[in-house]
Amino acid sequence: MASSSSSGDYISSSSGTAQTADEELRALLEDAAREFPAYVRQALAAEAPVGGGLSPASVSATLPLTFPSTGLGPSIWHDIHLVLRTATNTWSPRFLYKLYASPTPIGVLSEALLGLLNNNAHVFASSPAGAVIERSVGRELCRLAGMPAETSAGLTFPGGSYSNMHALVAARNTRFPECKREGLWGLAKRKVRPVVFTSAHAHYSVEKAAVAAGLGLDGVVVVPADHEGRMDARALRAMVQEHVAQGDAPFFVNATAGTTVLGAFDPLDALAAVCADFNLWLHVDASWGGPLLLFGPSPHVPPGVHSLTINPHKLLGVPLHCSFLLVRDGLGTMRRALGLGASYLYHNVENDGEDTWDFGDATLACGRRPDAIKMWLVWRYHGTQYLRMRVQRARQLARDFAQMVRERGAQASRGVWRLVVEPQGTTVCFWHVPRDLAADGEPEARWGEVARLVCERVNAGGGALIDYATVDRFTRAEDGYEARGLPCFIRIPFNNPEVTRDTQNAVLDAIERAARELAELKLI
Amino acid sequence: MASSSSSGDYISSSSGTAQTADEELRALLEDAAREFPAYVRQALAAEAPVGGGLSPASVSATLPLTFPSTGLGPSIWHDIHLVLRTATNTWSPRFLYKLYASPTPIGVLSEALLGLLNNNAHVFASSPAGAVIERSVGRELCRLAGMPAETSAGLTFPGGSYSNMHALVAARNTRFPECKREGLWGLAKRKVRPVVFTSAHAHYSVEKAAVAAGLGLDGVVVVPADHEGRMDARALRAMVQEHVAQGDAPFFVNATAGTTVLGAFDPLDALAAVCADFNLWLHVDASWGGPLLLFGPSPHVPPGVHSLTINPHKLLGVPLHCSFLLVRDGLGTMRRALGLGASYLYHNVENDGEDTWDFGDATLACGRRPDAIKMWLVWRYHGTQYLRMRVQRARQLARDFAQMVRERGAQASRGVWRLVVEPQGTTVCFWHVPRDLAADGEPEARWGEVARLVCERVNAGGGALIDYATVDRFTRAEDGYEARGLPCFIRIPFNNPEVTRDTQNAVLDAIERAARELAELKLI
Repeated sequence: MASSSSSGDYISSSSGTAQTADEELRALLEDAAREFPAYVRQALAAEAPVGGGLSPASVSATLPLTFPSTGLGPSIWHDIHLVLRTATNTWSPRFLYKLYASPTPIGVLSEALLGLLNNNAHVFASSPAGAVIERSVGRELCRLAGMPAETSAGLTFPGGSYSNMHALVAARNTRFPECKREGLWGLAKRKVRPVVFTSAHAHYSVEKAAVAAGLGLDGVVVVPADHEGRMDARALRAMVQEHVAQGDAPFFVNATAGTTVLGAFDPLDALAAVCADFNLWLHVDASWGGPLLLFGPSPHVPPGVHSLTINPHKLLGVPLHCSFLLVRDGLGTMRRALGLGASYLYHNVENDGEDTWDFGDATLACGRRPDAIKMWLVWRYHGTQYLRMRVQRARQLARDFAQMVRERGAQASRGVWRLVVEPQGTTVCFWHVPRDLAADGEPEARWGEVARLVCERVNAGGGALIDYATVDRFTRAEDGYEARGLPCFIRIPFNNPEVTRDTQNAVLDAIERAARELAELKLI
Repeated sequence: MASSSSSGDYISSSSGTAQTADEELRALLEDAAREFPAYVRQALAAEAPVGGGLSPASVSATLPLTFPSTGLGPSIWHDIHLVLRTATNTWSPRFLYKLYASPTPIGVLSEALLGLLNNNAHVFASSPAGAVIERSVGRELCRLAGMPAETSAGLTFPGGSYSNMHALVAARNTRFPECKREGLWGLAKRKVRPVVFTSAHAHYSVEKAAVAAGLGLDGVVVVPADHEGRMDARALRAMVQEHVAQGDAPFFVNATAGTTVLGAFDPLDALAAVCADFNLWLHVDASWGGPLLLFGPSPHVPPGVHSLTINPHKLLGVPLHCSFLLVRDGLGTMRRALGLGASYLYHNVENDGEDTWDFGDATLACGRRPDAIKMWLVWRYHGTQYLRMRVQRARQLARDFAQMVRERGAQASRGVWRLVVEPQGTTVCFWHVPRDLAADGEPEARWGEVARLVCERVNAGGGALIDYATVDRFTRAEDGYEARGLPCFIRIPFNNPEVTRDTQNAVLDAIERAARELAELKLI
């Protein structure tokens, strides 16, 4: 203990060893070079559990949850092995649970590199390489999104929700510059009530951002989707008009490329036309579907898009988090909307008019991990062709899987197999009900219970990790809409390129088996 | 390219090699086990540059900023070496630039582990180990902060700014529950204007959070600090009373333990008394000084504290980011304030009344890196004694350094060496002016220019990375305050336990030399 030692004494950091930091790091990384690949080999094995059988109680009983006075030193590997046993196996091609999936080996290395650097991307001087790489990757993504290379910019945020929140707040403060100083109080005194529009099928982060931003859920106008899950541009126009007529101040539309549940792509051109007519900031939450827009066979983002969120940590194999917010008008817009220019931190040495190399002040936060380095390394290690391959393969996997669902559905003996919608991107949603329970006709409430129980049974068996979800479906009668909550269905997002036709058949078989067993046990 | 391939074909992920993922990972980690320690060995060398000589132009000229169609594969190490050359060297004990510093070897490994897991801590099922560890570490930190173990909880956020923002928004929606639905518009209609209080020396993230939350900068009441940089509790009370009398609705006080510039500790007991009297949520931004409160010789957090931000990525050697928000009333409070319970994601399977294992819905975001695992590994690898040692050593280093400044100041031939304040924690702020320029008496505007130019010269020389800053100093006359902007001074935060008396002398010598050279060159 150093409580009374003078600072001239060197105090060894590890538990009793006299290693220098580089020796200590070498020992740990040599162990990692042996242990981590061994874990991956096991995790990829056909019979490897995916993690669905774990419970808070079982994990708590497995992990050592004490905080020893003296450190374990290299015995930490015992702990690490227990973490590996109680973590979800995202390497498995049968991890089909969420919109991210298997990390890439270069992605793992990139995380170690960020740890090694411990650079902080708020100001240039504390992350020079990170700043240059963030600007470079951001601009390349902007270019692929059809934004002007000279003025547009991409910034990383710790996940798509934060990217969307930044878009919403930046849009609010750009449209209502006085809001930065006066807040919504100043607007309210002048009876200006800002409202935002988003699709009924959009991610809930837009609502959370509106709650954070003081607009409240009442400040979010939910626009119905069509039968395929796409925001209805005609409805948007009517609702904007209605709110303008009421005296509200619409300023922001959140469109989605790849909705969370159905994987639907909103009609960006039609939405951009509405936004242009009413001077609305058009943001595209392309957290999931962005790679299809930017790396797909026919990239297209209309020029009316002001900002776009894309998460390379989803479809592009970069580990969590790596999310970019692309901003057509660049960092000057963000800095004016959000920056406070705290003088102790932002010395403005590296800034040049509109431009800045001190990215922190263009955000609502301060310290920032240089996540762009991860994307840059994955991109350069694998090449653009690989990114295109991942996207196209995921798309093809979704098409193939939908066809397999249809084929099973064509065999009456196998009960109901019905797609909720034809997949537009890389997500497939469907119902399965075993033969004896299958009522022909429209899906019924009971189908939802079957979907939920089937997923839980498949997951508990450990053979795959799959999820269920629901959405509203809308019916337009004249100018009105009726929303009907669909029964739960099974949602399978495709991402990991290691998924094969065999994986897909195995998952469908596991679903069919779980449903049959549940029926036999009279549990459904 | 896979554009037309059936998904039954396996497509190798890397550039032309037939490695499996585990082989690819082994090759990369074996390289890392050789290259990363070699980097650390160089970075720790006495003559190693710290990174201050880098510019956007030089870094852009060094790094390959193209996006090749075909990937580089293992040649990526060429890129990685260029990143290491153009990054800031945070391993050096002469990196004294910001409040974070050298990562630990186990910290680097922990980042690689998070990359390997790629688990997402929004719901239990996608990060079982991460959820259990986050709860466990959070509770232990709450216990050390004197919060009740059974009801309090700690949650990680991607940095202290986000932790503070969550505290502010949660406090707003707890005090004004209707705000979640109606936003500030509903409050404004009832003439309720929420305002927050923070010290003039507090971190700007509170202002940013207020801007985000729609309160605006006008909704932030800035409370003067005393001559040592501590928020004046008497002034706070008077200002709260004044705003209540005006009809405003105070709800939140942000106190600081370890201010960003001076490293001052606000008087938490006195502030808690004010908050109790006016029913205000007392948040403590202990991003920097938290370890002194929790791991110092006399830990003390008064029971009136509702929430506290602590960043293990600063003083405790965990790599960026690792920030905990400790909440006395636990996750139920956070979930009620911020959660939307998106049904597709939060199936509530693992939730138990007030409690939840799906942490994402207690936040404003969705996906979350399980950063708590990093803290848990550092803690168990090194032990609590090590964490206490780091804190006490940093404190001792600050005391010693202040004494060295005073000793130089006692030698008239060395010019002015004057502490701005006596260090309360682990930060030392001072002026140095060479003899010929030293005006005796109060610091003058010219001293600030000297501090800035000296820092720039020291940094450009590559021998250390140090920073300058300023704050207002307040003079109380009767009930009024007068703020005087101090001239810039040099701010040295102590953190890295590898700093020795020799490091400290070398830095002071470099400062003295830079000042003398600037004077000789007539640049100051």
